Amino acid sequence: MTVRVAVAGASGYAGGEVLRLLAAHPEVEIGTLTGHASAGQRLGALQPHLFPLADRVLEPTTPEVLAGHDVVFLALPHGQSAAVAEQLGDEVLIIDCGADFRLRDAAAWEAFYGSPHAGTWPYGLPELPGARAALRGARRVAVPGCYPTAVSLALYPAYAAGLAEPEAVVVAASGTSGAGKAPKPHLLGSEVMGSMSPYGVGGVHRHTPEMVQNLSAAAGEPVAVSFTPTLAPMARGILATCSAKARPGVTATRLRETYEKALAAEPFVRLLPEGRWPATAAVQGANAVQLQVALDEAVGRIIAISAIDNLTKGTAGGAVQSMNIALGLPEDTGLPMIGVAP
Amino acid sequence: MTVRVAVAGASGYAGGEVLRLLAAHPEVEIGTLTGHASAGQRLGALQPHLFPLADRVLEPTTPEVLAGHDVVFLALPHGQSAAVAEQLGDEVLIIDCGADFRLRDAAAWEAFYGSPHAGTWPYGLPELPGARAALRGARRVAVPGCYPTAVSLALYPAYAAGLAEPEAVVVAASGTSGAGKAPKPHLLGSEVMGSMSPYGVGGVHRHTPEMVQNLSAAAGEPVAVSFTPTLAPMARGILATCSAKARPGVTATRLRETYEKALAAEPFVRLLPEGRWPATAAVQGANAVQLQVALDEAVGRIIAISAIDNLTKGTAGGAVQSMNIALGLPEDTGLPMIGVAP
Amino acid sequence: MTVRVAVAGASGYAGGEVLRLLAAHPEVEIGTLTGHASAGQRLGALQPHLFPLADRVLEPTTPEVLAGHDVVFLALPHGQSAAVAEQLGDEVLIIDCGADFRLRDAAAWEAFYGSPHAGTWPYGLPELPGARAALRGARRVAVPGCYPTAVSLALYPAYAAGLAEPEAVVVAASGTSGAGKAPKPHLLGSEVMGSMSPYGVGGVHRHTPEMVQNLSAAAGEPVAVSFTPTLAPMARGILATCSAKARPGVTATRLRETYEKALAAEPFVRLLPEGRWPATAAVQGANAVQLQVALDEAVGRIIAISAIDNLTKGTAGGAVQSMNIALGLPEDTGLPMIGVAP
Amino acid sequence: MTVRVAVAGASGYAGGEVLRLLAAHPEVEIGTLTGHASAGQRLGALQPHLFPLADRVLEPTTPEVLAGHDVVFLALPHGQSAAVAEQLGDEVLIIDCGADFRLRDAAAWEAFYGSPHAGTWPYGLPELPGARAALRGARRVAVPGCYPTAVSLALYPAYAAGLAEPEAVVVAASGTSGAGKAPKPHLLGSEVMGSMSPYGVGGVHRHTPEMVQNLSAAAGEPVAVSFTPTLAPMARGILATCSAKARPGVTATRLRETYEKALAAEPFVRLLPEGRWPATAAVQGANAVQLQVALDEAVGRIIAISAIDNLTKGTAGGAVQSMNIALGLPEDTGLPMIGVAP
Repeated sequence: MTVRVAVAGASGYAGGEVLRLLAAHPEVEIGTLTGHASAGQRLGALQPHLFPLADRVLEPTTPEVLAGHDVVFLALPHGQSAAVAEQLGDEVLIIDCGADFRLRDAAAWEAFYGSPHAGTWPYGLPELPGARAALRGARRVAVPGCYPTAVSLALYPAYAAGLAEPEAVVVAASGTSGAGKAPKPHLLGSEVMGSMSPYGVGGVHRHTPEMVQNLSAAAGEPVAVSFTPTLAPMARGILATCSAKARPGVTATRLRETYEKALAAEPFVRLLPEGRWPATAAVQGANAVQLQVALDEAVGRIIAISAIDNLTKGTAGGAVQSMNIALGLPEDTGLPMIGVAP
Repeated sequence: MTVRVAVAGASGYAGGEVLRLLAAHPEVEIGTLTGHASAGQRLGALQPHLFPLADRVLEPTTPEVLAGHDVVFLALPHGQSAAVAEQLGDEVLIIDCGADFRLRDAAAWEAFYGSPHAGTWPYGLPELPGARAALRGARRVAVPGCYPTAVSLALYPAYAAGLAEPEAVVVAASGTSGAGKAPKPHLLGSEVMGSMSPYGVGGVHRHTPEMVQNLSAAAGEPVAVSFTPTLAPMARGILATCSAKARPGVTATRLRETYEKALAAEPFVRLLPEGRWPATAAVQGANAVQLQVALDEAVGRIIAISAIDNLTKGTAGGAVQSMNIALGLPEDTGLPMIGVAP
Repeated sequence: MTVRVAVAGASGYAGGEVLRLLAAHPEVEIGTLTGHASAGQRLGALQPHLFPLADRVLEPTTPEVLAGHDVVFLALPHGQSAAVAEQLGDEVLIIDCGADFRLRDAAAWEAFYGSPHAGTWPYGLPELPGARAALRGARRVAVPGCYPTAVSLALYPAYAAGLAEPEAVVVAASGTSGAGKAPKPHLLGSEVMGSMSPYGVGGVHRHTPEMVQNLSAAAGEPVAVSFTPTLAPMARGILATCSAKARPGVTATRLRETYEKALAAEPFVRLLPEGRWPATAAVQGANAVQLQVALDEAVGRIIAISAIDNLTKGTAGGAVQSMNIALGLPEDTGLPMIGVAP
Repeated sequence: MTVRVAVAGASGYAGGEVLRLLAAHPEVEIGTLTGHASAGQRLGALQPHLFPLADRVLEPTTPEVLAGHDVVFLALPHGQSAAVAEQLGDEVLIIDCGADFRLRDAAAWEAFYGSPHAGTWPYGLPELPGARAALRGARRVAVPGCYPTAVSLALYPAYAAGLAEPEAVVVAASGTSGAGKAPKPHLLGSEVMGSMSPYGVGGVHRHTPEMVQNLSAAAGEPVAVSFTPTLAPMARGILATCSAKARPGVTATRLRETYEKALAAEPFVRLLPEGRWPATAAVQGANAVQLQVALDEAVGRIIAISAIDNLTKGTAGGAVQSMNIALGLPEDTGLPMIGVAP
């Protein structure tokens, strides 16, 4: 099979990571690349690491130039995907790395994004219960947010098994690439190196309703999520420290067995041996998840911690994984499993 | 006043930071410096940044060489302070940067440290209710742990005012200097740069009972603390993200006013203007605390976040601040208020 | 003595560092602060680390608001200092952190800066031969560039003693704060963390003629300088690796003795013991220089390496040091000697 | 073809990177892994990123366990390769990542390594003139040092074309992984983050004679190399800033054309478009080289700058590239071309 793929938004971090992975994908032929302000420039000037594609010229993002591909990845600002998708045929597989089609709850969408809800597409987190079935043969995929990927994978086994009370507390540290490539003073290297700082505190981060959606679905009841994101002095990676009160009778053994059973067949998720804890470096550049869980018996809380690369499993890797499933390819085709460490 | 000061454990990070601050203290004359494996070496070979003291030679840590000083700082491994202290006279001010005399609960000490409890000294976190009175004129001071400093300052106003339920969840990120100077594989630069990782998960970190002690004292009832420390890719700094359920009727306004009132007179603590959040870089090398608080109304939790430098306000700066109080000097004598940023 | 000081350009990195140092200077009272785009804002929103000055409001940079001070620091973009200086009286001490008045060679100025030469002021690198005499009582000071500070201190002893051929090769690594606070894509944390990259290669960096000026003056003959700056993944610091062919007959012993003699009386420069090499962390935030020199006998080159903090000794610290000399204060008044390490 | 490969020294950084690449190599089956102190441990405890190999148990490094493979990679401390190699048959392809067989000059070996010279094997830097011919069908390969890889690729085109005087000055910045995984105080994260420092100054670094060998061979005359390595605050990457006086008559155009011609057919080396400069992040984890060259006409020097990943193209990637050539596989089989950036 040769799949012809276009990437809209090739100049940003998400688009660049999609291209890094597609360039090594054995079934993919990279077609049109588009940009907005960067249209007309060579990719090499914008993404110097993508040197086999350095001489590609970016075109403006229009339905015309995106037409004629089997798959189109959208790495566009929020709110722009619907218009592009409408003009591409139903037979084209569209994989949206943006937020537009992630939420099922229109009211939550409008509260957090301040614009009308565009709809809901099959959700590209294959590890969630039922997700693979919805992705097989799909022609529209909503790629999850990076934080919801890390948090949902850490906590869904506990919620699906009824082990946790429906109030989760999440503190996650992200590398700065999650904040994008548009230059802003607080994202300067001088500001972020040697510094940790929170942002979007108090329940206002837009990824919050997505976590609520995923964990509530797993639990079969509404789960409240207190989410605090922090910016860490690294380019890539998310470490999500998640906890919830254990339901009565939960033991460390039962907790461990629940996670082992839930994750045993997952090709990209590694539940670490007991006593070892995830590190983001171990999954840098890989479509991999490291995960560990513990019961703090003194306070009666389940602590689940996951590490992912926000750009790989958290965005572009998850997107390619979903593409593979949608197209009927082996799920791991072309996806790196091993992080670039140290 | 000229105070003659000795520092035991001058080759490590805590001892080095004590010396950095003492060298700029207008009332201090630096006397004997001691080390263990490093005895006999010049300080310049061990602490190249302390160049005005480069030619000082470290002596072995014995009561004899520490005698004859007005103040002795101990920056020793856990369990060694008691023996040294016993042999110094009661008139000597001993400031212990180690853990030995921090806890009042002997059972908690034994559970977390695995050795007999040595006793309890006045606690060197002057901002806590009643602490300054206990420190004035004291001749023994137990300097708090770095994490308990950050966490206690973030949450005590809420607990002292009865605003929070007695179960706190804390996730804190620390720079690597908190782990000390003894070389271990997981602390290599190659391992920590570009990586976030947790450790001591599940209630086992030794600073946990100290947080419980401080917050319980503020609340007037036992407070449970779920504490997860993480290692961040920076040399210095702690960002402590702390939360607890708000008691019924707590509003954002009342929360803010409570913190403003509690902290208004504190010389080293800055409650940031609303909407701005702490960053560890802003307090690097300073005896300063940045703090912010918010109410997440959707989940009913108080979120309080503090940033300190683990070596300065978290160790050596707090130690010098306590020395100033004990000696009757102005509390801010010789202490930097401004972080080295960017 | 109480010296009333204004700072023009208080919102940038140089202005912020000037304020950090002045706030701890015992003879200084901080007066007016100005900004351009930031006029009208509180300093706390722009420089969160300067919290004792957080409520100061920035005024626009005009001669009127700068009048009435004993000293005015200018931390303005190139080309703006002359106009401001003209309107302040001759009795005001003006310390220009910009480039406008550094070069004596008008042709070099015009070639590198593309604008008419504004003139030449006494040069604020006190360690250079003759510099202190010119600074004493001066009412105008041109603060050197950060790279020329590091390079000139590393090489002037060799050139002043006639030990080196007049062709120097310099490769220097700088922290990103040297590139300023204006947000640009290549200065994003995501781009600079984990990466080293050169810029201004091939003799085009504007600091080149300043190095040529200083080394030629020391040598008494024209010295050519091949200068390559690189951007390092750190916020602060310059490591300058400088070399030149040794003149015939130069031995390692003579080289060492020459440096020892040249630098013995310098309060802020530390020639390290033989076999030890500088590190930028050791001088972070300090007005200090670490320096080492060696003779590579196999290739006949002198290697001199210096470490400074680009914002402290490389800009604001050197500026305050020059102010102290100009005003007749002890040269080290209010200046930190010890770096914030680790 | 399925090639059965053993890796001796699988617990270190070089061995880990060899395994990361081999795990993605379509023609390789990974056989025995060995360690020294780590023998008996599972790989997952030592190299958490290599999770598809996590359950492999390391064996001690003996000829018996290494026998029966088509290829054996040696990632051992200096001086140990010869003994292992002797006991493996001549038909086994041995790829030595250590230094033992790199130098042709026995006297240089003995001067820099202080032990008897073990011999010389075909040199695994395929881009050098004549190197591919020597590697085809070879059964012994000496993988170059990381610095010599970066420096030789930057300068050999100039020397091979007779454009440069035979005295090169090299200042290179390396990530800390180049210093290995054995814990030492100066390699702690607390020490290296935020700091640049030189080491091995003055012509004493062991990679110096290897650079001399490569550049002299290209030039057809002895080339002297002044080499200063520096440690940069990043885990991976080498930026080599190399310069030499241009021979009379060399122009920028001729220099550019020389490099374009020399490198046009190289699959892993990218000479950047004029005006753009390498960055180590762009080649992180890739078997790629970014390179740029310029003529500083004011001082008459050629400046050539290269960026590589010290562990990939600088060690393990170059090793696999050489294996591919030796075995007659396409040279780029299994090798990543795109760096993990940002």
